[in-house]
Amino acid sequence: MARKLIVKRSKKAGADPGTLIHIGRPSDLSPTIRVIRYDRDGLSDQCIDDPAQYVAAPCADQVTWWHVDGVHRPDLVEALGQKLQLHPLVMEDILNTDQRPKVEDYEGYLYIVFRMLRYDPDSQQTDSEQLSLVLSQQFVLSMQEYPGSVFDGVRKRLINVHKQRLMRTDALVYALIDAAVDHYFVALEQIGDQIEHLEDELLARPTPATLSRIHHFKREMLMLRKSVWPLREVLGRLWRDENPLISAETRLFLRDVFDHSVHIMDTIDTLRELLASMLDIYQSSVSIHLNEVMKMLTLIATLFMPLTFIAGVYGMNFAFMPELSWPWAYPAVLVLMLAIALGLVAFFWKRHWL
Amino acid sequence: MARKLIVKRSKKAGADPGTLIHIGRPSDLSPTIRVIRYDRDGLSDQCIDDPAQYVAAPCADQVTWWHVDGVHRPDLVEALGQKLQLHPLVMEDILNTDQRPKVEDYEGYLYIVFRMLRYDPDSQQTDSEQLSLVLSQQFVLSMQEYPGSVFDGVRKRLINVHKQRLMRTDALVYALIDAAVDHYFVALEQIGDQIEHLEDELLARPTPATLSRIHHFKREMLMLRKSVWPLREVLGRLWRDENPLISAETRLFLRDVFDHSVHIMDTIDTLRELLASMLDIYQSSVSIHLNEVMKMLTLIATLFMPLTFIAGVYGMNFAFMPELSWPWAYPAVLVLMLAIALGLVAFFWKRHWL
Amino acid sequence: MARKLIVKRSKKAGADPGTLIHIGRPSDLSPTIRVIRYDRDGLSDQCIDDPAQYVAAPCADQVTWWHVDGVHRPDLVEALGQKLQLHPLVMEDILNTDQRPKVEDYEGYLYIVFRMLRYDPDSQQTDSEQLSLVLSQQFVLSMQEYPGSVFDGVRKRLINVHKQRLMRTDALVYALIDAAVDHYFVALEQIGDQIEHLEDELLARPTPATLSRIHHFKREMLMLRKSVWPLREVLGRLWRDENPLISAETRLFLRDVFDHSVHIMDTIDTLRELLASMLDIYQSSVSIHLNEVMKMLTLIATLFMPLTFIAGVYGMNFAFMPELSWPWAYPAVLVLMLAIALGLVAFFWKRHWL
Amino acid sequence: MARKLIVKRSKKAGADPGTLIHIGRPSDLSPTIRVIRYDRDGLSDQCIDDPAQYVAAPCADQVTWWHVDGVHRPDLVEALGQKLQLHPLVMEDILNTDQRPKVEDYEGYLYIVFRMLRYDPDSQQTDSEQLSLVLSQQFVLSMQEYPGSVFDGVRKRLINVHKQRLMRTDALVYALIDAAVDHYFVALEQIGDQIEHLEDELLARPTPATLSRIHHFKREMLMLRKSVWPLREVLGRLWRDENPLISAETRLFLRDVFDHSVHIMDTIDTLRELLASMLDIYQSSVSIHLNEVMKMLTLIATLFMPLTFIAGVYGMNFAFMPELSWPWAYPAVLVLMLAIALGLVAFFWKRHWL
Amino acid sequence: MARKLIVKRSKKAGADPGTLIHIGRPSDLSPTIRVIRYDRDGLSDQCIDDPAQYVAAPCADQVTWWHVDGVHRPDLVEALGQKLQLHPLVMEDILNTDQRPKVEDYEGYLYIVFRMLRYDPDSQQTDSEQLSLVLSQQFVLSMQEYPGSVFDGVRKRLINVHKQRLMRTDALVYALIDAAVDHYFVALEQIGDQIEHLEDELLARPTPATLSRIHHFKREMLMLRKSVWPLREVLGRLWRDENPLISAETRLFLRDVFDHSVHIMDTIDTLRELLASMLDIYQSSVSIHLNEVMKMLTLIATLFMPLTFIAGVYGMNFAFMPELSWPWAYPAVLVLMLAIALGLVAFFWKRHWL
Repeated sequence: MARKLIVKRSKKAGADPGTLIHIGRPSDLSPTIRVIRYDRDGLSDQCIDDPAQYVAAPCADQVTWWHVDGVHRPDLVEALGQKLQLHPLVMEDILNTDQRPKVEDYEGYLYIVFRMLRYDPDSQQTDSEQLSLVLSQQFVLSMQEYPGSVFDGVRKRLINVHKQRLMRTDALVYALIDAAVDHYFVALEQIGDQIEHLEDELLARPTPATLSRIHHFKREMLMLRKSVWPLREVLGRLWRDENPLISAETRLFLRDVFDHSVHIMDTIDTLRELLASMLDIYQSSVSIHLNEVMKMLTLIATLFMPLTFIAGVYGMNFAFMPELSWPWAYPAVLVLMLAIALGLVAFFWKRHWL
Repeated sequence: MARKLIVKRSKKAGADPGTLIHIGRPSDLSPTIRVIRYDRDGLSDQCIDDPAQYVAAPCADQVTWWHVDGVHRPDLVEALGQKLQLHPLVMEDILNTDQRPKVEDYEGYLYIVFRMLRYDPDSQQTDSEQLSLVLSQQFVLSMQEYPGSVFDGVRKRLINVHKQRLMRTDALVYALIDAAVDHYFVALEQIGDQIEHLEDELLARPTPATLSRIHHFKREMLMLRKSVWPLREVLGRLWRDENPLISAETRLFLRDVFDHSVHIMDTIDTLRELLASMLDIYQSSVSIHLNEVMKMLTLIATLFMPLTFIAGVYGMNFAFMPELSWPWAYPAVLVLMLAIALGLVAFFWKRHWL
Repeated sequence: MARKLIVKRSKKAGADPGTLIHIGRPSDLSPTIRVIRYDRDGLSDQCIDDPAQYVAAPCADQVTWWHVDGVHRPDLVEALGQKLQLHPLVMEDILNTDQRPKVEDYEGYLYIVFRMLRYDPDSQQTDSEQLSLVLSQQFVLSMQEYPGSVFDGVRKRLINVHKQRLMRTDALVYALIDAAVDHYFVALEQIGDQIEHLEDELLARPTPATLSRIHHFKREMLMLRKSVWPLREVLGRLWRDENPLISAETRLFLRDVFDHSVHIMDTIDTLRELLASMLDIYQSSVSIHLNEVMKMLTLIATLFMPLTFIAGVYGMNFAFMPELSWPWAYPAVLVLMLAIALGLVAFFWKRHWL
Repeated sequence: MARKLIVKRSKKAGADPGTLIHIGRPSDLSPTIRVIRYDRDGLSDQCIDDPAQYVAAPCADQVTWWHVDGVHRPDLVEALGQKLQLHPLVMEDILNTDQRPKVEDYEGYLYIVFRMLRYDPDSQQTDSEQLSLVLSQQFVLSMQEYPGSVFDGVRKRLINVHKQRLMRTDALVYALIDAAVDHYFVALEQIGDQIEHLEDELLARPTPATLSRIHHFKREMLMLRKSVWPLREVLGRLWRDENPLISAETRLFLRDVFDHSVHIMDTIDTLRELLASMLDIYQSSVSIHLNEVMKMLTLIATLFMPLTFIAGVYGMNFAFMPELSWPWAYPAVLVLMLAIALGLVAFFWKRHWL
Repeated sequence: MARKLIVKRSKKAGADPGTLIHIGRPSDLSPTIRVIRYDRDGLSDQCIDDPAQYVAAPCADQVTWWHVDGVHRPDLVEALGQKLQLHPLVMEDILNTDQRPKVEDYEGYLYIVFRMLRYDPDSQQTDSEQLSLVLSQQFVLSMQEYPGSVFDGVRKRLINVHKQRLMRTDALVYALIDAAVDHYFVALEQIGDQIEHLEDELLARPTPATLSRIHHFKREMLMLRKSVWPLREVLGRLWRDENPLISAETRLFLRDVFDHSVHIMDTIDTLRELLASMLDIYQSSVSIHLNEVMKMLTLIATLFMPLTFIAGVYGMNFAFMPELSWPWAYPAVLVLMLAIALGLVAFFWKRHWL
């Protein structure tokens, strides 16, 4: 039921480094490749099947954005990689969808890989997929695992407005990263809402289901942290390292996304500590409840055991039990029992057990 | 009931970076803009509605302090930003009131953002609001979310005394930061008092309510820590980085506020560890109490079960039970019961159960 | 039963540093030495007994790969060390199979030592063995403790393909490291599967055996972490330090293996935290179960103690108990008992104990 | 009862920075100012009331040591500060006795502030007070909150021996710091003794009082840590920074005190971890005790419930119970009861419950 | 019983820094001073009483090794210090046997101090003593607290072999450090064995004694960690800092000992975490056992309480209880009781309580 913690990459063990094997969930969908070329004068947008056959006259000041949905076909990735002259290690990393977020500096281009997040409110789980970005002077390549609408906003802006800023590839990459990181906030908000809801439930009426839900969210936080921690490093390096591919202006904006990632990390850590505290509360609640139950039991036992004993004594069948024949003995014993019961109740009252 | 851990910023997801959208609690109050201009010779203080229409002859050695209460109107922030020639990212950050404390270096000015704290003794919660400061050679801009009296002291000093120190913008910014940080101490003192009160209650008589109050304060500490930790970095950078906007004299004073923030952080950490220790104590108290209750139950059961059994034996209706007809059997059984009871009490005494 | 945490190296205490003593599990197998020489034109592969007697004309551009299975014979290691002119400390470290992973820079060669991992699904334990690598301009020496098939893939590639990349010793060393590190993923996947299986078992039906299995995996993680943490440092140094023995091209590939080791470390930490969370869940489950059991006991006792008491009262043998002779008394008492029982059940229902 | 965690400094909030307000426990004692001047030829020692009126011919090679007991009178501190030309921030920090330990570099002098420790064996609490030191080329100023004998040893050495080393102000400051730090060891030893005593008590016979004492010492450790951690930084900076006021020879001695502070920190951390371990032991002890109690209860209940049931059966009043009239039935039932009891005891024995 | 956590050094408080006072366990043994002089041609070995009277012609290329057993006589240490021209602080540190491990650079010599370890299998405690080493160009001084055989191996090597390496003082110091550090492994192995033994006991049959033994080893680990952590720093500095007293060749060997210390630290941390995990297991075991006990109790009570109640009902003495006179009522009630008992057993079976 639970998502796999560890993606199977064992099929790669023993293979020649550089062998292109897809690691990740297999998919039936056919990958789509979309090529958007634009400059100050206009934009062309087309879907292609075979990257090798795509020919376009190179043109200064023109930005080409290759966007691929679906990376499960090694042949396609290889064709694309050869078209764009990517290093074999980059192609390997694109196919291996269990990559740790990182940024790598190759000659003439930067390879950026990190995870995009999506929170599914029904299963209350966060799904993530790998986003690979290649930034060069002339083109941007973005590859995601599944079709999705995260970058629709960016595409629309390219069509509608002739923003001067997006005329550079680094600005386009920034826009893509920013769109992806914004979705972290959406996921975190929904998880945060769920956790606060759980917290209210915990303080009002904890049940065993509360426990497994706390565990569920702790697990989610572990997964999120594993994605966000290295993302922070990636964005930090993009902002700080003076790479000629990234202009000073874009660097200012990347600092802003970097701040967002730090903020996300802070929030994850806060939620983690909150969940740890909630577990403590849960365990204490269970103990308190046990205490109450046991107090109840002790009260009942302490009240009725002496009384039952007295009744038992006068139920004995000895021949010579003078009390038995005294006429006021029965009411006297009843009164004695009542007195004992009241005395015990008073004792419990004094000990604050009632 | 509990304050929201995570401010909704999802409405921003997908928006063009640089779009000005207010993120935070909506407010009905109309923002007020106050412009104070002063130099060694005098001071003018006026409230304005539209920053675009405010015209004032620039004048060397004159300091202009723009102070805004309320940042929920994007149009106003934009007008002000254009008036003062602020970068779009700064305007965006001013409107996004869930900003992580930071200091950012722009050409010609510094942008400082952190949270101001207020402890509400009734709800026993700390409220915080975002304070944005812009420091340039000629003016200081301060924007807070809600009207408040934190900076009244600074304003009074401007009117009454012609302090040479406040003649520089950096000194004015320092005065504002110092006033805001001083309120952290006020909040911490009140929380500290509450926690010590809770500690006394815990050691004297813990109740389930104690537990949820410990949790409440742990949560408060998580929130505080999230605000103060980056504030420390902000003040550290202001003090250490040699920025031409900040004089060496002011830097000495900023080192002092920085020390305050370290002190606040230490106190928060100490309170956190104290709360963790209190939770341990609470859990042990619950266990100790359970032990006492169970000891009581065991005592009672161990005392009366054998006695009731003996009574039961002599309540059996067998025809041939010779003891039943012996005249001294009844007193003998009573004495036996007493002996057993005394023996058990002695046993418990020896085991330190009484 | 459990593997030894600490390898006995006490027999070395007091010995002259540089004395060659084997530390590790003794072995009956006779070590095998395999020498593979290859260049662009072809490859020779032979097994030898005595390294001292092996003579081969040195030849530029030819790579010699010495591979040894079994390091438990100090004489052999010494002969090999003298043949290849290794420092006495290197020979000592090869023999001491409890070495912390490290990379050491000697004149003319690099000494790299780390652990290879193998997960045994039957005993559910990870076995590890020490791999020593020596990289010089002309030769590569690899020594592992036990025979194994980890490097078969590398050997096959040497035979089949005349890869230009493997023509350098650094590329061969990279291929060996990569093959060894890939096996970490295989081991981790199997452990991860086991842990997720255990997690499902924990949430569905925890037993005391679950507890000792959680402990078992925590212990495994401790051992793994002890191997992987320094491995990360080793790979980081290999990639970052500009050593003339390692070309820039190979460095790119080493960065990739380094990323793998970071990823492995992240996964180990995630599994550790998951196990910690599972233990918390386990402890809470035990408490919840205790609560249920006690609630059951309390219900039963609270229900029957008063009833038994009433029965006891009317079992007393007093002569004057007028109720006894009333004809409707018996049914009345039965009705009273029923009423009490129903009342208690209603009480429990209201308290959510049923 | 418990000492205040947080010193009230709220009365300062809103005040002009630089305003001199005393923060700390008010005191009735009148502060004393003692001025000791000495050179190689002799020493003068006098108590004065008003620093402003003290006039002394400046004299090369003469060291002046101003020592003040009591800092609760702002006017006095101000007079002294003006006499010695101290920065307003230094005066403010001297008056604010809740200062975090620090060393600050002003023009011409160093300001050092940290806490002195005193362990009160009666209340088993550590008291601390703030020590402010000012080191310049000509004079040393030391200000402590309460009168005490910590520096008597230093004063005696000045009188008795004409130590060449103390002829410099930096050597005098070192002597004062060394005397103060030595008292940390005294306090730690006494606390350590108490904790080891508590540990013996815990292992022998834990009581609820043990718990609150563990909490008490954890709290003490929190307070100590808060004082010692920054003290270490202070001493580290004094030793490492090459300040012209401190000679190389004195620096060697300061390194020694620095080592002491690291040692103190190590000891505090060790004690903290020991206390954490003691709390674990305590909680386990409580659980073990509960187990014993419950085992006792279960034994008794399991033993007597079946027996009482059998007795109950033969106490029933059915007309046709043939066993009742068999002559050997009574002894047979007694034997049956014995057999059941022995069988249960054997069962418990086998389960190691006895 | 337990070893003192904190060595009494309070007698030093208030003393003049530089006063020579022995801090540590007093000893009755008379210290022995052994002077070994050797060069390539031969070796002289003699025990002396008064270092001041020892005269030996200085001789190039000759190494003098002063070794002292017992440092409890301040006069002796002072005499030796003056003979070898040591700084007063060094003499003070030699006498203060509660020193934190450190290496200090004085003019012309290095002062190294750390702790030697010995594990006593009878008391299952590690004893430690302070080892002070002074390394100069001409001589080596080693001072340990108690007589011991740790350095016998080094001495033998000096006599038997004319190793070229030991002809330098730095090589001799390395040999001494290596011999001392090797004994850490011996101690750790024995503790590790004990802990694994305890782990087996824990999983098989935990007793309260197991708990106090876990605590005992946690305490041991705290003490060891306090010694080893700074030792690592010491060895790291000896290896890394380019000190003219230590040759490049010896530095290689020191790197090897440094690696050992890191390995020791790793092992201590692993053992610490293992002990923490064992404590968790212990606490869970106690809870599981409690659960079993309580289940037993609940089973018994649930089984017999209803039956006893039924027996009680028919033991009532009402005149009109028609069932009593029905001939088949008694067997019917017995059958009813059996049915109830079987039903409850089935219920427990279904709930997996049996």
